[in-house]
Amino acid sequence: MTQPPEPSLERRATRARITAYRAGTVESLDDRLAGEEPLAIRAAGPGQEPVDVAITMRTPGHEAELAAGFLRTEGLVEDHAAIIGFDRGDPTIAAQPDDEITVRLARPFDASLVAERHFVATASCGICGRASIDEIAVRCAPIPAGPLVSAETLLSLPGRLREAQAVFEATGGLHAAGLFTVTGELLVLREDIGRHNALDKLIGSQVLAGNLPLHGNIVLVSGRLGFELVQKAAVAGVPVLAAVSAPSDLAVETAGRLGVTLVGFLRGAGFNIYARPDRIAVGRV
Amino acid sequence: MTQPPEPSLERRATRARITAYRAGTVESLDDRLAGEEPLAIRAAGPGQEPVDVAITMRTPGHEAELAAGFLRTEGLVEDHAAIIGFDRGDPTIAAQPDDEITVRLARPFDASLVAERHFVATASCGICGRASIDEIAVRCAPIPAGPLVSAETLLSLPGRLREAQAVFEATGGLHAAGLFTVTGELLVLREDIGRHNALDKLIGSQVLAGNLPLHGNIVLVSGRLGFELVQKAAVAGVPVLAAVSAPSDLAVETAGRLGVTLVGFLRGAGFNIYARPDRIAVGRV
Repeated sequence: MTQPPEPSLERRATRARITAYRAGTVESLDDRLAGEEPLAIRAAGPGQEPVDVAITMRTPGHEAELAAGFLRTEGLVEDHAAIIGFDRGDPTIAAQPDDEITVRLARPFDASLVAERHFVATASCGICGRASIDEIAVRCAPIPAGPLVSAETLLSLPGRLREAQAVFEATGGLHAAGLFTVTGELLVLREDIGRHNALDKLIGSQVLAGNLPLHGNIVLVSGRLGFELVQKAAVAGVPVLAAVSAPSDLAVETAGRLGVTLVGFLRGAGFNIYARPDRIAVGRV
Repeated sequence: MTQPPEPSLERRATRARITAYRAGTVESLDDRLAGEEPLAIRAAGPGQEPVDVAITMRTPGHEAELAAGFLRTEGLVEDHAAIIGFDRGDPTIAAQPDDEITVRLARPFDASLVAERHFVATASCGICGRASIDEIAVRCAPIPAGPLVSAETLLSLPGRLREAQAVFEATGGLHAAGLFTVTGELLVLREDIGRHNALDKLIGSQVLAGNLPLHGNIVLVSGRLGFELVQKAAVAGVPVLAAVSAPSDLAVETAGRLGVTLVGFLRGAGFNIYARPDRIAVGRV
């Protein structure tokens, strides 16, 4: 069966200009960011209108495999012979949308299967593309300029998070999110097997305490930074969001649009700034 | 506002007996696994029936914060004053279900907000508790005994995955899933910002090639192992699933029930076996 053409490498690994801090030295570097884009997976039997099955944030590439693997492992198609082809825009042509793929099936697709089975929600809803960053922006009150955070403070955060985690965690299997003051004091730590849940718990603790917006705080997350975490931090008014690992391209774009300072690869003696570097004092000590 | 009591530490970090392999030595050890359980988040205004908003796989603990943070950061409630309380079973009483929490709101909750906004699906649908592992078992053909994989082969896999990733990846931000032969040859590598997507792409490539069930293969994933990844591997007939990091308690339980050999913390000169150790030859060489 013919599979749709693959999107360009540029969309799987986007070029970006970043500010890199390494042991007291600051430089501007070219970097590559993991591509993150929404994909709507649909299914249709012969002569049937496509049924929305799922929307997932994914890295462009191998969309037909992703759709086939999803439908098969979720038990929505029985076997290989059930799939007869794929409909989608041509991802090599920029003007054609390719944020959706329809799996053509040999037999009618039972739409009630989708309605019956609640797809597990991770995080952001209704986020179907870069356009909807604007929609989030409407929900977010603007984040004011400042505070100013020193490189030394930033570098101290992962150790403080790990120290506090050691107290709670015996499993080695949990994501962590920490709320810090601008001088690096840990205020709240929350852990969860899901990274979105860890941040929801952290922000939820502040919602319930009546502390939003969190304009005077830094949030550090233990893993990677996707779009949804930036969205959540921005809605809570967090001015500085840092992660131990890499951000996606959409995370960086969203942070820039919503006015959040985004720090990634915060480990050892260095870090990268991907958006709004004005809040980080990177000058030599 | 009063928050519901917290679940026991036992559910956040479950005790387990594992087989640990360290540089040629095998021992049986007590370990702790990260708790993973479904939570249904609901919302209700005064006198209103609760509306299902989301189901998430989470680590027990801080459910009120999780629900409040989710509703707030997804823009479903406007502010702190909108939340007046929480309804749920008492998690300290085993007989009461606490896989759901209802957020009581000061104003009527507009259910159309949930219907309008497609929650991003990660992976498994309809998975609402341990009972539904049985339902998956029905979808999975039994995985036969064997193959036998040597400790040396297992230990070689992370290096081979990383080597192949280096060719494709320039971002440091992608999860990887690799399909190997039982002698450790890498057949297919897929990457994605979402770990479920990486595995869906990998399995999807084999669905489209007509290769399921994958009874003669090993799958290695770069991150942690949650329930949903085990489910997907089991449906594809994968007999040995390995991860560089930790599995959750529900992942281990599911692997045991579905007959999948589960290996975690596969790094350096060691690994842990959490389920079905019979497929791993751990004897001294």
